[in-house]
Order: sequence, then structure tokens, then C-alpha cells
Amino acid sequence: MRIETAAQYIESLRALKPKIFYKGERIEDVTGHPATAPHVRAAAMTYALAGDPEARDLATATSHLTGRTVSRFTHIHQDVGDLIKKVKLLRVLGQKTGTCFQRCVGLDGLNATYSVTYEMDRKHGTEYHERFTRWLIHLQDENVMVTGAMTDPKGDRSKGPADQADPDQYVHVVERRPEGIVIRGAKVHQTGAVNSHEILVMPTAAMDERSGEYAVICAVPADAPGVTMIFGRQANDDRRDKRERIDAGKPSFGAVGGEAVIVFEDVFVPSERVFMDGQTDFTGLLVARFANHHRANYGGCKTGLIDVLTGAVTYLSQIQGTAKASHVRDKVTEMIHLSETLYSSSIACAAEGKPTPSGAYLVDALLANVCKHNVTRFHFEVARIALDLAGGFLATLPSQYDLRHEEIGPLVKKYFTGVAGFPAEDRIRIGRLIEAMTGGTALVESMHGAGSPQAQRVMILREGGLERKIKLAKVLAGIA
Amino acid sequence: MRIETAAQYIESLRALKPKIFYKGERIEDVTGHPATAPHVRAAAMTYALAGDPEARDLATATSHLTGRTVSRFTHIHQDVGDLIKKVKLLRVLGQKTGTCFQRCVGLDGLNATYSVTYEMDRKHGTEYHERFTRWLIHLQDENVMVTGAMTDPKGDRSKGPADQADPDQYVHVVERRPEGIVIRGAKVHQTGAVNSHEILVMPTAAMDERSGEYAVICAVPADAPGVTMIFGRQANDDRRDKRERIDAGKPSFGAVGGEAVIVFEDVFVPSERVFMDGQTDFTGLLVARFANHHRANYGGCKTGLIDVLTGAVTYLSQIQGTAKASHVRDKVTEMIHLSETLYSSSIACAAEGKPTPSGAYLVDALLANVCKHNVTRFHFEVARIALDLAGGFLATLPSQYDLRHEEIGPLVKKYFTGVAGFPAEDRIRIGRLIEAMTGGTALVESMHGAGSPQAQRVMILREGGLERKIKLAKVLAGIA
Amino acid sequence: MRIETAAQYIESLRALKPKIFYKGERIEDVTGHPATAPHVRAAAMTYALAGDPEARDLATATSHLTGRTVSRFTHIHQDVGDLIKKVKLLRVLGQKTGTCFQRCVGLDGLNATYSVTYEMDRKHGTEYHERFTRWLIHLQDENVMVTGAMTDPKGDRSKGPADQADPDQYVHVVERRPEGIVIRGAKVHQTGAVNSHEILVMPTAAMDERSGEYAVICAVPADAPGVTMIFGRQANDDRRDKRERIDAGKPSFGAVGGEAVIVFEDVFVPSERVFMDGQTDFTGLLVARFANHHRANYGGCKTGLIDVLTGAVTYLSQIQGTAKASHVRDKVTEMIHLSETLYSSSIACAAEGKPTPSGAYLVDALLANVCKHNVTRFHFEVARIALDLAGGFLATLPSQYDLRHEEIGPLVKKYFTGVAGFPAEDRIRIGRLIEAMTGGTALVESMHGAGSPQAQRVMILREGGLERKIKLAKVLAGIA
Amino acid sequence: MRIETAAQYIESLRALKPKIFYKGERIEDVTGHPATAPHVRAAAMTYALAGDPEARDLATATSHLTGRTVSRFTHIHQDVGDLIKKVKLLRVLGQKTGTCFQRCVGLDGLNATYSVTYEMDRKHGTEYHERFTRWLIHLQDENVMVTGAMTDPKGDRSKGPADQADPDQYVHVVERRPEGIVIRGAKVHQTGAVNSHEILVMPTAAMDERSGEYAVICAVPADAPGVTMIFGRQANDDRRDKRERIDAGKPSFGAVGGEAVIVFEDVFVPSERVFMDGQTDFTGLLVARFANHHRANYGGCKTGLIDVLTGAVTYLSQIQGTAKASHVRDKVTEMIHLSETLYSSSIACAAEGKPTPSGAYLVDALLANVCKHNVTRFHFEVARIALDLAGGFLATLPSQYDLRHEEIGPLVKKYFTGVAGFPAEDRIRIGRLIEAMTGGTALVESMHGAGSPQAQRVMILREGGLERKIKLAKVLAGIA
Repeated sequence: MRIETAAQYIESLRALKPKIFYKGERIEDVTGHPATAPHVRAAAMTYALAGDPEARDLATATSHLTGRTVSRFTHIHQDVGDLIKKVKLLRVLGQKTGTCFQRCVGLDGLNATYSVTYEMDRKHGTEYHERFTRWLIHLQDENVMVTGAMTDPKGDRSKGPADQADPDQYVHVVERRPEGIVIRGAKVHQTGAVNSHEILVMPTAAMDERSGEYAVICAVPADAPGVTMIFGRQANDDRRDKRERIDAGKPSFGAVGGEAVIVFEDVFVPSERVFMDGQTDFTGLLVARFANHHRANYGGCKTGLIDVLTGAVTYLSQIQGTAKASHVRDKVTEMIHLSETLYSSSIACAAEGKPTPSGAYLVDALLANVCKHNVTRFHFEVARIALDLAGGFLATLPSQYDLRHEEIGPLVKKYFTGVAGFPAEDRIRIGRLIEAMTGGTALVESMHGAGSPQAQRVMILREGGLERKIKLAKVLAGIA
Repeated sequence: MRIETAAQYIESLRALKPKIFYKGERIEDVTGHPATAPHVRAAAMTYALAGDPEARDLATATSHLTGRTVSRFTHIHQDVGDLIKKVKLLRVLGQKTGTCFQRCVGLDGLNATYSVTYEMDRKHGTEYHERFTRWLIHLQDENVMVTGAMTDPKGDRSKGPADQADPDQYVHVVERRPEGIVIRGAKVHQTGAVNSHEILVMPTAAMDERSGEYAVICAVPADAPGVTMIFGRQANDDRRDKRERIDAGKPSFGAVGGEAVIVFEDVFVPSERVFMDGQTDFTGLLVARFANHHRANYGGCKTGLIDVLTGAVTYLSQIQGTAKASHVRDKVTEMIHLSETLYSSSIACAAEGKPTPSGAYLVDALLANVCKHNVTRFHFEVARIALDLAGGFLATLPSQYDLRHEEIGPLVKKYFTGVAGFPAEDRIRIGRLIEAMTGGTALVESMHGAGSPQAQRVMILREGGLERKIKLAKVLAGIA
Repeated sequence: MRIETAAQYIESLRALKPKIFYKGERIEDVTGHPATAPHVRAAAMTYALAGDPEARDLATATSHLTGRTVSRFTHIHQDVGDLIKKVKLLRVLGQKTGTCFQRCVGLDGLNATYSVTYEMDRKHGTEYHERFTRWLIHLQDENVMVTGAMTDPKGDRSKGPADQADPDQYVHVVERRPEGIVIRGAKVHQTGAVNSHEILVMPTAAMDERSGEYAVICAVPADAPGVTMIFGRQANDDRRDKRERIDAGKPSFGAVGGEAVIVFEDVFVPSERVFMDGQTDFTGLLVARFANHHRANYGGCKTGLIDVLTGAVTYLSQIQGTAKASHVRDKVTEMIHLSETLYSSSIACAAEGKPTPSGAYLVDALLANVCKHNVTRFHFEVARIALDLAGGFLATLPSQYDLRHEEIGPLVKKYFTGVAGFPAEDRIRIGRLIEAMTGGTALVESMHGAGSPQAQRVMILREGGLERKIKLAKVLAGIA
Repeated sequence: MRIETAAQYIESLRALKPKIFYKGERIEDVTGHPATAPHVRAAAMTYALAGDPEARDLATATSHLTGRTVSRFTHIHQDVGDLIKKVKLLRVLGQKTGTCFQRCVGLDGLNATYSVTYEMDRKHGTEYHERFTRWLIHLQDENVMVTGAMTDPKGDRSKGPADQADPDQYVHVVERRPEGIVIRGAKVHQTGAVNSHEILVMPTAAMDERSGEYAVICAVPADAPGVTMIFGRQANDDRRDKRERIDAGKPSFGAVGGEAVIVFEDVFVPSERVFMDGQTDFTGLLVARFANHHRANYGGCKTGLIDVLTGAVTYLSQIQGTAKASHVRDKVTEMIHLSETLYSSSIACAAEGKPTPSGAYLVDALLANVCKHNVTRFHFEVARIALDLAGGFLATLPSQYDLRHEEIGPLVKKYFTGVAGFPAEDRIRIGRLIEAMTGGTALVESMHGAGSPQAQRVMILREGGLERKIKLAKVLAGIA
């Protein structure tokens, strides 16, 4: 049954029975458990926007496969306009949730797999593209949520998959049967895994010929037998788990994407869900396409988050009576400047997008990497400025229990009041929001999500066109 | 007679007789004088590209006024595609000249005046737009070069035009006659002035009602009576003036745009060339439109320059035997990263362009300011890295006279040879190119051209949408 | 009874009965409560080092008042050597605790009050210096811990103390009696307050003549009637409170200094403990002296912390197999470079120290402010690099309950193993240590402790000697 | 005859006859030639200060060899006080010359050679130290100027001395005679070479056993037979050569140290002037000692230069009417902050200095490298800020010939006048001073003088004490 609304999405998750652990215990219902519910709500926003007249143009698209209106999160980009709308959609969602809404990783996996299977079939005479398209139409029509599972644990990083002491450090095919394959291994840092319906398994790096068993793309239901998820800790997760609505900073939403480790213990995947099996020569292309799409996103969603943060410190400076100080205005300016610099590369790599042989559009690789790379710098700098503007009380603020306490509550209110007319509780709530958006997990995600900084540098150098630039220099220097 | 080629452009300049001083003497022929010829050659490239099959799509456009093919440097942008092509054209020109080719300032003045006169007429019932359009068609058909003259000397910057001790610190109307006006004052830092056919005078800032005489837009031939230009000094200009082709770094082209002071000593301007006279309420809009267009350009042309510089240091590192060192590769990566970050905002502000009431397209104001603001930081950082990679010999290299000297020439060659197979002269030429592109004038231009850094910060804060961002934060913090 | 050892210090705290709230409840024993015990342990290290033969030279000094050996944390600096030893002591303590050990704020308060009361008496004929010296000898002989209480809540920051809607936004004298004074107000962000024996109250800013009641320095026992403390929340404080030794990151020590709000509700202070009362003309000097000493410290203690962090990421890169990658080595180099830059200013402002009229040595004001200002930048940058090197697992790591779980524990260990030979638990523990030292509270403290960044900029400009620099420039430019 | 005054120094140079080329011609008298005279004047300031009562304590010292008063530039540092006074002397000289005064390179060579020959003799039983001491006493008594010649051309930098195609790419012994040695090769970037009396040749890098002929330290008179110098070009050197006192920016002094290539074509050196010959095992130590001393200097002299630059932009902002703008004040603050950060490391590495076995004091290696490394960043940033504050007129200013021109001179003055009361010429002179101190050669010197940035990073990592830091982290993480 097609999921049309946020409520239907939440309802649909209750029907699944994935095996999820958190702090040593099973989570039975991700929609109700305080650790996962905020992430469910953020993902639900992607469904809700499709029904919002103001956002519908961004949140939905017309399937090139069926002509039907589908969620943009299941859509294959057909032109530059699609690429740009995606960026704008991500920014709006960042503004409305203040966090990761998780569905772009699946979207990017779908787009990468769509275009790569097309080219793989043309070279190898395989039928992956058709298989994949059938599955994709199902996703579009049912509007299910897919997590793109790429990052393997990697063990000793100075060695490749085939040279690890433990062969399971990268997901691999351990058995091939007539009707399908059996896979083993794990994927770490899996955003949205615990509240997705489907897992799209992809290789994590370019593989050489010795690593055929590691070259696998396939789709696995989130509650398939043999799949176990372990939900990770986040900064201040206990406040969330104890439903401390004020101290958690964001009463409704979480810190990041609700990442989990997904372990595959000999999971069977039927053939119609296998989209690559052994074609090592296409692993590099698949990873690059996925990475380019995914890196392009960060100038969308993170600028949405920074919009929130900029608003928060501005409001706080009004409460504290510092809004008109020239250095405060200058720092707010810098926050805007940095966030729009990030946004620029997202828009630019979309505007410079080009079609792949399959017709699916791909962002400009160089600019997409530049985009993500700046996120690994500027999100930290923005956070640093926000903490400067907010003031030291972020580190020493009494708890909400003290605020509500009969004896000391009045003292807390008295001494955390700023400019007359602003409630002390506004100041505290905004302070907690800033705290939640500037520390720990949220920034680690900006650093490593969609690839660590060095991964982008490798791509930037590769795409930099140095040979041509040497020629330009020689001409201008008068060297024959 | 329409200018079709670089040679025709140069020829056309010989027919003009502007009054130009340089180092205390008159320049009689800008096309032959060593101080100005390099700048003529750079501007000539804008004509040459229109005839280059590979570049024609970027370098020309179809006039919306006449339907005829015109230089893009005289074109009114009709859609996002025009805005993006302009950026790409600027990058190509930067790559081919390694310097400023000067024509964008006129282009931006034309586009700003076109859209603002349209709105001015609608409000005030004036006829400036029609006048301007007639002049514009003439420019398009003849393909003449226009310099956009905006920056006044400003005197005491803590005071506005009307409060200066010397009223001429801003260009103003000193007399109104039936057939036209008489203006007095000066414009400083005028790029391409000495090799332009026309000067488009514009106000430099938003004016208040007390400054009606300063609210003037008009067109003045470069050699009109009363116009005097003083050509400024640049870094190492003597090398250029003495035609030291190696030591000048760029044998054919100059350091920047060949800036001059233009002095207007009671210059008469006939009415059909006057496009604003007293409408102070539109001065702010005119300046903002011009500035936005102009700031958008810097991520185009400067990335072209950085492409050259990146190629130069890469080639030099090959000559010196350091190309494979990890820190060298990392620094080259950083140069590419920073330049593409600049480029991103140029592309993004174009992709986000919107039509003005006149139909002329305008770039996104926020992103255009972000673009230029990053140039004021990253061009310096790129230069710093280039100097790091090039090595200390840039500061201590013997002259080309030593290189050619019978006795010590062999010593220079012996001790400036790097990896076998690369001529020592290549190393020296590339070193001089890097020297020319990293020091002094070239960087000052990046800092202050199209507005000093603080001007962009004012705009970024103004366009930052803080009120809306405060609302986003309050919603997420649970504040009603 | 004199406190000689860490154990005696802890024992002495049990004898006090301060009124402390945390999360809405009273803390009865700070030495046993999980929220405060880590901070007690950090402060106890200052006592322990005095008994460590390797550290004794740094940790103790000879009192210029009594000739007896005293803790350096109660010592008045007598020469440059004292100032330098203090910095080195702070670095060692930072290395051993990885956090704030709290006693320097009292030390700086003592030194500032000592020198300022001397000058105040000379001008006003008061007897504060002698009173203070008596109290100080008591502190030295008993070796009690003092918290320096300076920062007031400040209410509306665009207004001074006398113009607040609520006069209690700054601590002030509400009643003067023959035998003493009564004070009201609060001090926020009070490091080490809950485990100190004494509170040294000082004004928070230069006061004008209208603010005489706010110009007060006095000493208050931590458990004096009318004193209430509210212990603030810190990042991940629940992990600490639940004694999750692995997930807390530092099994023995806390995140920062254990800051609290101290509320004074009409607290009586006998005259012999009052060291300023109404001398507004010395408030600015007192604040500056305290600030200079305190800002000088940050290049000591924080470099100690960064030493730990640098070791942590280096070890982690060995575990993960990335230690030899050139970009990893380069980033570790950068961490060292930045931390030693911080250290430099601490050493330099000590080496450039000068005596005050009292004989007490004062650090160089300009360099001390430069020191702290760099901390507000570089500690963040160091944290950013550490998070880069650590990898994304910091944000997604399962809890220690999962690690110890019978069913999934083996999966956690399997998939978090790196290079053979390193226990997975080492990787997890080091990851948690890095997490604890890079996010949230720890960085806020670096930003705002000892004054927010703008406070340093004001001082740097004031101390910058611009008039003399203008003269230097004019001479070189040949201007008469 | 002992040189006591600046005039005597200049006189003494006229007695020398070194073979110097510049722009293809011989320079016969360095004291009168416009290319070299400014550098002579800067070096002369080191002599003049010794006679200045205010500076004498910094500029002179008591020789530990003879007990006589000597120039600090010939002194072997005997304690921390000496090291600190050296830094202060360098800052004063930087303030008074605005450029490099060249004598520290010889000073550092002397100190390095002094301590290393001592240790070399102890290990190898050689007599270099005594020889060297004799020569040193001569230097001290006569107060002659010595240039320290270290940097070889290096040819293909991916290869060592013994593997170059041309063996002369590093200075080496080509013949050993009973009475001395014969050397061949070149030293590049030699500061102060053309106006020194003596050249102290030192190896440029640690050598292995295959490179015995390259392990040579010796002293060569500047006008010894076979020595040829080629004086390098600098930014805007033609202005200086044409004695354009205004446009050159600094009427009396040069851009940098007046660097030259020194070529040794089979130069004979008598044995008593040879201080190392073949002891490859001490080359690394010599280079490190020299580098540490030399890197320590940059936080002295460069902060002197930045003091001038800070004064210049401050004065210019007063002339232009922008001195009170908050962003101007903030940028001036940043200039001060960065320069004092540089100064901190110079002072700190001196304060942390330790004696070598010879008794000569050596700065702290880690902090000295940190010092120089920051110079390679902050001097550029300071220059960038200065250019921001100065405004675009630096790149477009008419020449001094225009200023003095009968017809257009009045126009130049009219339109370059700022706030009433400040002469236009002041503005122009200060503008030219800023131009001279921010572009090209001056910054290249900061980057590469005393070793390029990567050289410092190698040392910083080596000196960083990682093993100990790993232990600290493990203890805190609870790892046994």
C-alpha cells in the first residue's frame, strides 16, 4: 500500500520487525522508542512535505518510468532542474528538522545504481538494469524508504578487502545458489537504517580482480533473517532517551541521522534483488557516482541546519542585549557568508550536471567534492562562531529539573533573565538548541558523512585538469 | 564601422585621441606604448574569441533588441543561460590572458542601467530607458568598448557627497543647459579606461535627497573635451615599460586592467546621452545591480587566472623534482579546491538569477556578494600557496640581462637547472610568471575591485533573511 | 589542619556542608556523587603533585610572606621564574587530568587582589592589603582551595550594573553593618566552586562612580549561610552520572571544571574578609590583572589537554592502520604546531612579566590576551583535526552495554577490530576519549573561560601601541 | 681597524672589491649603487644602534672569549637573557629599517659552528673549534660583517648531492692541498652577501657517508679570487634603481635583504679557515642548530616590520576618514594579534633555551620551528589585511612624476586628498610604503627564508614527542 503521509509512514514501520539493539537491549518499536522516534519524525517530514502545497514542487517529481507523481527521494534525476530542486528540497528539510532526515542516502544509491547497471549491462550483457528498474518502480509506487549501505568496517586500512585477516571486514558473497546469493559482513554508520524498509547494499570502494566476491549490489528488506542492527550512541543521547524536552535542545528531532551498524550474518538475497555480482570493473564507477551525488547534498541540508543556527544565535543576542554590537553583527554575517558558500557549490554542481548514458543526470564531480570538502571546514567554523556568540552559559546552564524546581527554579529564572520582555525559558531553550547543534555527533557527521576529507582531496586532484593548466601557463610565459 | 576582429579593435583605438598621462608624460598611442599595449592586447582577446569557433557560443549572443549577433560584452542577459555563459566566457578569457580583459565593467554598467532606467521611467515618467536603448543598439552594432565609471575619490569617507569640503570629490552636474549637462569630478581605478571608446558614468553610492546633482548617469566619449586620464603605476611596471619580456612574467599581457584616474573638468554631455539626472531614489538600486553583476564575475575571471597559476606551479614542481612529494600534491589540491569554491558561487548566483521588470536577468544578490567576498580571501591564499610551492628563487632570481650575459649567463643557467631535460630558461620564465601573478597589484585588484570586502559584508547581512531564520529556530526549540 | 595530600583534600571536603543542587536535587557529598567526584579528583591532583618528587619544583613554592613551602596555587609570583613555572605546572596537570583542575582561578584572584589592594591602600589610606595578607597566610598554611568568583549574570548586556531592571544582576552590597557587609547577587560559570573551601568574590568589570555598591571584593566560606550553588549540565553528563566508565571517555576525570552558579542571598561577610568596598576606581585594574593572569594560563593547561588528544589520535591511527599515511602525519603535525603556538604565548607573557608596586609579578598584558585569543581559535581547529583523524565511528559507536552483551558483544568486537594485535576495546576507549575531549562543553570553556574573544580584542587594541607605530611608519615613508 | 660606526662600516665596504653583477653589469661600489645602497644602509643600522644609548644594551654584549664589548651580531649566546635580547634587538631593527638588516644569518652561522665544532672535536679529535674561535675573536674585535652561506641550488630535488647529474649543485671540495682546500659550487638566496666582509660557508643538509666532499664549513673573504656574486631582482627594483624616493615606498631602505647568488669557481681556502671537512656525521646537527637559531629570529624582525605596517594603515585610515569604523578597528586589532603571536614564539623559544656542551645557548627547537612556521602564514594574512584597509588606490596610484607635474600635479593632489588637514602627499607616501611592504619579494622572503614551510613541519613532527603523548592518552582512557 502506497505511503502518502507522515502518519502512514510511521504506521508502515510498525509492521516491520527488524532486529535492533541499543544500549544492550532490543528496540521493539522504533516509532515509540525515545532513541529512534526523533529520527522517525525527521524522516516522516520527507513524506509530509509532499503534501504541503508550498513544498510539493520540490518534494515530488514525475517518474520517467511510469509518468506517475513520486517522491523526489525515489526519483531518477532527468535534468538540471531535478538536480537543483533536490538541493533546495534538502535545504528546506534541514530548516524544518534541524537535523538529518536520512532519505538522501537511498536516493543517491538509487541514482548511482540506475546509471551504472545500465552501463554494466551494455558492456557485460548482464540484465541488472532491468531487474533494478523493476525494483525501483516498486519503490516509487509504494514510496518506501531505502537506506544506501556502503561503508564497510575495513579492518586494517592499510590493506584491501582481499588481504584482511578477517575476510568479513568487507561485505561479500559467501555462497552462490541458483535462486540467489548469501552475503556476510557489516555496514557501519548507516543513516536511517533502523527506520527504513529496504537496504541497498553497495561496495564501498573500487575493487581489483582479486576481490570479485566483494563486488556486490543487492537489496535486502530491513527485517530479513540474518540482519542485525546496533544503534549507535550520540552526544547527549540520554537527555533524549529520558525525554528531557528542554535539555535535549530539539524537542522533536534528533542530533543526526540515527546511525546504526548493520550486520549481515549469511543473509540470503534472491536473484531478482541482485544488481551486481562480481563486476569489479564497475565498482569504482558506482562508488564515484554515489559519492558525487551524496557530496553534492551537503551544501543543501547543512545550510538548512546553519539557517536554524544563525537564527538561534541572532535571537539569543536579542535576548542578551548584544544584537547591535558591531562584532556580533559581523559574526552573524560570517555565518551567513560561510553557509552560502557551501550552498553555492551544491547549486553549481547541479547547474553543471550532465546526463549519463542511461539518461540519468549526474552532478559535476569536481564541484560536488568541493562542496562536501568545504562542509568539513565551514560547519565547524560556523559552530565555533555560534558558540562565541551564545556565551559561556551553554557549558554551565542548570538542568530543566532545576528550572522547574520549587525552591531554586525562581533563582534560575532570575539569573538567566536577559533583556526585559524575553522569558528566561526562551533563553534556556535557545541555548540548549545551540548546544545540540554545535557539539559532538552533529559535527562528526559533517566531517565524515559522504566520505572523509581526504577522499574529497583525492577526487579534487584527479578532476583538476592539471595537464591542461600546465599548457595555459606555458603559453602565457612564452614557452614554446 | 563595426569592429569584428582584434586587429580592427586596435585600429579603432588609433583613431581616438584621449588625453592620457603616465609617469608625467602624454601617451599618444595606447596601442603602441609599452605601458598600455598589454592591456589593449587583453581587451583585444574579447574580440578575437568571437571569431574562434570553439568560443563563439560563449563570446557572442543574439541581441534581444535587434536579433543580430553581438558581442556578449554588449548583451543584456535574457535568461539564466546567458548569465552562466558569461561566467564561462570570463574564465576562458582569464585562462588565455592571465589578467583582466576589462570589458565586464562596461557590460555590467549596461545591464544595470538598462534595468534601472526601465523602472525609473515607470515611476517618474522619464524617457531614460528609450534613450539608453538607442545608445545600446549603437554599441551592439558597432561593438565598441565601454568602461563603466563608478568609483569617486570620496575625500573624507566619514562624510557623504554633500558634506565634503571639496564638492568635486564626487562627480556632479555643475550646469544644466537646454541641450545637455556639464559634469565635473573624477572617477578613480577605472579599468580599461585608456583603451575604451566610451565612458558610462554612474553614481558610486546611494544618494539622499540633498545630493541631487550627484545622481547622474551619462555616456561620454573617451576623448571628449575636458576628459583627462592618468594611468596608474603597477607592480614591476618598469619591466613592462622596458619590454623585458622574460622578467615581466607575461610577455604579452599586463598585471591587471590598466587602471586610470579619469578627470572630468566641466565636460558637456548632450541630453541624448544622459540616462539619470537627479533621481536620487534610484541611485541605490543602480549601484546594487551593478555591484551584484560585477561581484558575480570574479568567480569567473579569477578562477581563469588561478588555473594558469596552478598550471605554472605544477610545471615548476616537475622542473624542480618535487612534483611527487605528498605535500606538493596536497597544496596543488588546495589551490584547485579554493578556485573551484570561487567558481561555484559565480555559477550558483547565475543559476539562481531572476528577471527584473525590464526582462533583463539579474544574478542572485546574496550569492554574488558571497562570491566576491571569497575572492578577497582565497586569491591571497592561493597566491601564498603558489609562493610556497615555487620556492625562494622568486625573490632572488637574477635578471634576464644576467641570463643573456656572455660571462655569467652560463653560471645562471648552470645553477638554475633542475631536473635534467628541462631548460633552465623554462624554470626562469615560469618563475617570473608566478611572480607576476602573485604579488602586489594583481592581489589588490582582487581585494578591492567590484567593492571592498566590507561592502560585501553589508550586503550579505542585509540579504541574509535573519527574521525568517529566527522563526525556524524558535519552532525547533519548542518556543511558541 | 594543613592539607598535604590528595586524600586529605578529599577528606576536608566531607567536612563542609555547602548547599548544592544538581538536576533538581541536593548533592550531599561532592566527593562521592558521580557528578562532582571527577572534578574533585582533578583538583586533588594539584595536591598530589606537591608530593611527587618529579613535579614538586613546579607544584610548590616558597612563600615570600612566611618562608614556608606552600602550594604554588596559593603563592604570590615573585619573579619571572615563578610565572614560567606556573605555566609548566598547568601543562603537566592538563596532561595528567585531561581536563580543568580548577585551582588557577583562585590563584589568579589571589594575585590580582594582592597587588591591587596594595595600590588601593596607598591611594585611599585603607587597610585592605594587610587584611588580605592575613587571610592569604591562612590559605597558604592550611592549603585550602579557593574559587575566584567574578562573572555576574549581567542581565541586559547593553546596560551597566546601575541601569539593570533587577539590581541583583551584579553582586552588590545591600547592607553595611559595623562588623561587616551583606551581599546579594550571583556569580555564574564558577569553576571548582562545589569543591572549594572558600569563595573570593570580585567585581566583574570596571565600574563607574554610580556603582559603588557593586565594587566589592570579599571572601566567603563555601558553606556560608545564604550561599546556594547550582551545578550545571555538561555534554554527556549522564554517562558520567551513570558511571559508564568506557562511554564517558575519561573514567576518572570530567569534561571541564564542574561549573556552578553561586547565588548569594543576603550573605553576611565580616569586615576582616572584605578587601574592597566602594573603591570603583580600582575595579578596572582588579579585573585587568585577574584577566591577564587567567588568560596567560590557557596556553598551559589547554596544551596539556591537546597533548593528550594528539596522543589519542596518533594511537588510534596506529590501531586503524593509517598512521603512515602522509595526510595523517601532516594533520598530527598541525595539531602539534597549533598547540605549541598556544604554549608560546603563555611562556612569552611570563618571560616578559614585570613587578607591580607590591612586588607581585604580573604577566605581559598584551601577550596574555593574545594567548587566550588564540585558544578560542586553535582549540577548535585542533578538535576539528582530531575528529577528522579519528573517523566517523565516533558518532555511531555502539554503547559499552552492547560491547559487553552476550549476543552482540562479539559482533561489536569483530567489526571494530583494526590492525591485528590491537584490542577492539582499546579502539573504543580511545574513540570515547577523543569524543569527550572534542565536543560541546570542553570547547565552550576554551571559548569563554577567562573572557570571551571580544574581551581580548578590546585589550589587544588598547595595548597595541598604535601611536608609536604611526611614528615608525612616518619616519620610514619620509614624512617629516 | 675596528668598525665602530655606521660610517666606518660603509667606508670599510669601499675597501673591498667583490665581483658583483646586477642586470648584466658589474657593480663597482655597493655603497653608492642604487640597487645595493639601501641594503648597506639597513646593515649600517646594526652598527649605529651600538652607539645609541637607548639601544646599546640590546645591540652589544660582553664577549665570553675576551671580556670585551662586542656587537651582539658577533656574540655567542651565553644565557637565556642573551637569546631574549637578540629577539628584542631584531624587532627594534625591523621597526627602524622596515626591512631585513641581514646580519642575523651570520650570527646564527657563528653560533651553530661554535657549538658544533666543539662537539665534533670531542668525537673526532679534530681542532676545528680552536681554529674557529680564533677567527671568531677576529670578527668580534674588528666587528666585520659575515654572511652565513648555506642554501645550495640543489638541482633535481628528488636526489641528494651525490646523485646529481652536475656534482656542483652542492658546494663541495674539489681539491685538498697541504695548506688548504679548493671549493666549487654556489650558494643561492644569500642575504647581505654583497655588503659583507666575510662568507661563512656551511652545508645545506644532513649528508650521508657518500657525500664527504660536501661536508664542508669554511670562511671565505667576500672578495676572494673565484667568488662571483649575482644580485637578484626584487619587486619594483627599478623604482629603487631610478631613485624614485616616493614611489619606492621606503626612501632609504630596500625590500628585503638584497639577496645574491654566490658562485665559487675553484676558490682556495687556507686550512685555518676550514672548520669542517668531511665530518658528514655532524652536518645534520650543524644545519639543525643554524636553522633553529635562524627560525627563532623571524618572530623578532618580522614583528618589527609588521609594527611599521600597522602604523602605516592606521595613519592612512585617519587620512581617509575611516579610522573609527568598527571593521577598521577590528582589522587593526587582528594585525596586532597576529604579530604578537609571532613574537610570542620567538620569546618563548629563547626563554626555553638550553646550553649546548660548548656552553653556547640554543633556543628550543620545537618552538623555534613553530615561530617560523607561523611567519609563513601570518605575514601573508597581515599583508592581506593591510591591503584591505589601505584601499584600491595602492594598485592605481599615479606616479610621483604625475604628482610633481605642472599640469596634472594639482589634479592628483585634489583627487587624492582625504580628510582636511592631511597633505595628499602623506597619503601617497604611506600608500607607497604599504605597497612596498606587502607585495612580492618581501613576502617570498617570509615564506622561504630560514627554510620553507615543509622543512619546519618535518622538525615539528620530529620534536613533537608523540610516544609520550600516546602514553598520556592511554592512561586517561583507562587502557592498561
